[in-house]
Amino acid sequence: MIQKSPATRLTRSMLEELDRSDPLARSRDAFELPEGLLYMDGNSLGALPKATRRRLETVVREEWGQGLIRSWNERDWIHLPLTLGRKIARLVGAQPEEVAVADSTSVNLFKMLAAALHLRPRRRVLVSEAGNFPSNLYMMQGLIDLLGAKHELRHADPDDVEAAFDEDVAVVSLTHVNYKTSARHDMEAVTDAAHACGALMLWDLSHSAGSMPIDLDGCGVDRAVGCGYKFLNGGPGAPAFLFVAERHQENLRQPLTGWLGHAAPFDFEPSYRPAAGIARTLCGTPPILSMTALDAGLDVVLRADLREIRKKSVALGDLFLELVAQECDGHGLEVACPEDSARRGSQVGLRHPNGYAIVQALIANGVIGDFRHPDVLRFGITPLYHRYVDMWDAVQALRDVMDRDLWRDPQFHRRATVT
Amino acid sequence: MIQKSPATRLTRSMLEELDRSDPLARSRDAFELPEGLLYMDGNSLGALPKATRRRLETVVREEWGQGLIRSWNERDWIHLPLTLGRKIARLVGAQPEEVAVADSTSVNLFKMLAAALHLRPRRRVLVSEAGNFPSNLYMMQGLIDLLGAKHELRHADPDDVEAAFDEDVAVVSLTHVNYKTSARHDMEAVTDAAHACGALMLWDLSHSAGSMPIDLDGCGVDRAVGCGYKFLNGGPGAPAFLFVAERHQENLRQPLTGWLGHAAPFDFEPSYRPAAGIARTLCGTPPILSMTALDAGLDVVLRADLREIRKKSVALGDLFLELVAQECDGHGLEVACPEDSARRGSQVGLRHPNGYAIVQALIANGVIGDFRHPDVLRFGITPLYHRYVDMWDAVQALRDVMDRDLWRDPQFHRRATVT
Repeated sequence: MIQKSPATRLTRSMLEELDRSDPLARSRDAFELPEGLLYMDGNSLGALPKATRRRLETVVREEWGQGLIRSWNERDWIHLPLTLGRKIARLVGAQPEEVAVADSTSVNLFKMLAAALHLRPRRRVLVSEAGNFPSNLYMMQGLIDLLGAKHELRHADPDDVEAAFDEDVAVVSLTHVNYKTSARHDMEAVTDAAHACGALMLWDLSHSAGSMPIDLDGCGVDRAVGCGYKFLNGGPGAPAFLFVAERHQENLRQPLTGWLGHAAPFDFEPSYRPAAGIARTLCGTPPILSMTALDAGLDVVLRADLREIRKKSVALGDLFLELVAQECDGHGLEVACPEDSARRGSQVGLRHPNGYAIVQALIANGVIGDFRHPDVLRFGITPLYHRYVDMWDAVQALRDVMDRDLWRDPQFHRRATVT
Repeated sequence: MIQKSPATRLTRSMLEELDRSDPLARSRDAFELPEGLLYMDGNSLGALPKATRRRLETVVREEWGQGLIRSWNERDWIHLPLTLGRKIARLVGAQPEEVAVADSTSVNLFKMLAAALHLRPRRRVLVSEAGNFPSNLYMMQGLIDLLGAKHELRHADPDDVEAAFDEDVAVVSLTHVNYKTSARHDMEAVTDAAHACGALMLWDLSHSAGSMPIDLDGCGVDRAVGCGYKFLNGGPGAPAFLFVAERHQENLRQPLTGWLGHAAPFDFEPSYRPAAGIARTLCGTPPILSMTALDAGLDVVLRADLREIRKKSVALGDLFLELVAQECDGHGLEVACPEDSARRGSQVGLRHPNGYAIVQALIANGVIGDFRHPDVLRFGITPLYHRYVDMWDAVQALRDVMDRDLWRDPQFHRRATVT
């Protein structure tokens, strides 16, 4: 992206030039971003789209306040889980009827894991990796305990997950992009290997959906889940999504058989009959206010081209790492993510023994990243609202925190509840 | 309530007099109610509190838009599930640390049912009643199927549920007030009977919480769940709540072991360790926008006295039924709820073979009730925003629909998705 010889030092004006020719530059206008703040935590909570306020005002004042119960029909609230699913399908390489929005990522994992075990009744192993986002591991443990500990959770080596696959494996459940290291699995290769041993493949797209092209159907994936509040900008605790390949839908049995997954929810039949298709993954009444915010967030992502988003994400990530090398040399910061962008998600990471305090000092100086135990500084890359100069400014702030030892201030060593 | 001899006909002016002396009259000002509409479906979706719009505007614009990820700490988002739980505890006769807000009612039922079976491993029967809200029955069926059909769902006779209790029963799961008939169980008597045979008692308070005093601890209840969008006015699909008696919390094992139920969620440990107390019932990230709306709805209910709410609810329900008898005689409308207010929840019901069309015609004429298969017209009583004259006006509209056969119009016979 940056045309220079290896010996040339990067300057801010070079990056201003890149911003001027950035095809995504205008998408930044779709967000409300605080003045004087550089936000690099969109991989944890996406920023607020401007349209969200209006959409929520409408759903609250008109649809709930004036329409009241009628809005379930007249404003089509009842179909929002599948309407939003169709939008997300366009972002993850799925057919429109393969995705639904419901519940939380953790609850959806439970549904998908239990459904996988139902299809592979003679296999007793669930494969994941020790570095997976802990809630994924905890949900597997909860399901295994509930079923009487007849199954086993096997941790794969993240650099060679396929070595853990054999004919005992019912389901392989991995997160596409790791929340801490940003390492990205090869979706197609891992899925193929899981299938080769007869296992089902379940991907968690929480840290990749909306930040890069994903091709669930092209990779032959069986099931997936993902989060609405990171790169999809759906707001804090936004509803999650799930994907079931069309070929599995007719045989899908998931245990959270709530009324909205019934074939005829408003007939109030005494016995459960699963709805046709993806709707059988639904459980309780959908949270309309949260879903409306997610809808607005999805619209912003859908207006962009995911290939452009990914191209810029890679360029910004490479740039950030190059700038750290150029500007922060000698401060003991190590790279804590793949340097090869092909193996990386849309975040970069650094490692430092005083990582927590450094992140706190950066936040106090207007650059929001976050910290992950024991020593990782995470910086989310969100091409829809990041500029190339933002990478310069972030690294200058980091350099300032390190050069001036700002992180040594005792106030930056006190742990908050959420770190 | 109404001082008259049995032979005196009720008039609208008598009811205006009652409204003038109603201690809850001013609580109506806390709601945004559409002009010219009489809303009697607050038992399905509560009306919009005026404060909700401002609260949502603040959480979106300031807390999310400006505070971004920092608001998990600085605006205490992370504690909302327990903060709201403490508010609901005051409405259901629980200790502050016995209630949490999370997920949907259906998902919470699953957690509580599975936890009950864990405490009663040798018992194989779950008791409910055939007329329970179907999602309750479906969730039991889903759990039973997941566990390999070693358990059985037994339907009790609603008029004599205790006859179904014996030493095989692990858990009795009933809805306090029936969604269709408005029949109310005697919480204390049924709980005592369940305990007498060694079973655990799980109440669904969806149709009673916020409409009457409830004394979970006084009745010795073990577990409860309930809905946030009916009498708690939390908005469409609002988060649900659950209650676990303090004596059971230390031994509580529920299967949806997501990260927010972990003892140290932000330490990202590889293995699940349940949090102390009620927090171990949490699973995924809480939906902050929907929770904020529920918080505003709860504040409106908490400002009133539940005894006053119940007293007025009984008076309004009795009045409605008396007016139907006085005004709609000869139209074939039968009472479809307990006439004895002590056995009734905060809704009244009528029965008519053309119930669906009658409800549609009423809605077209500005009175919103709803229909439940096969022939029940439901009218929710919400004392916080109903006036005594509203009962008069509603019954006059019903009389008009019947006297003029308005319901025969073909437009009122077309079924909508959500009926």
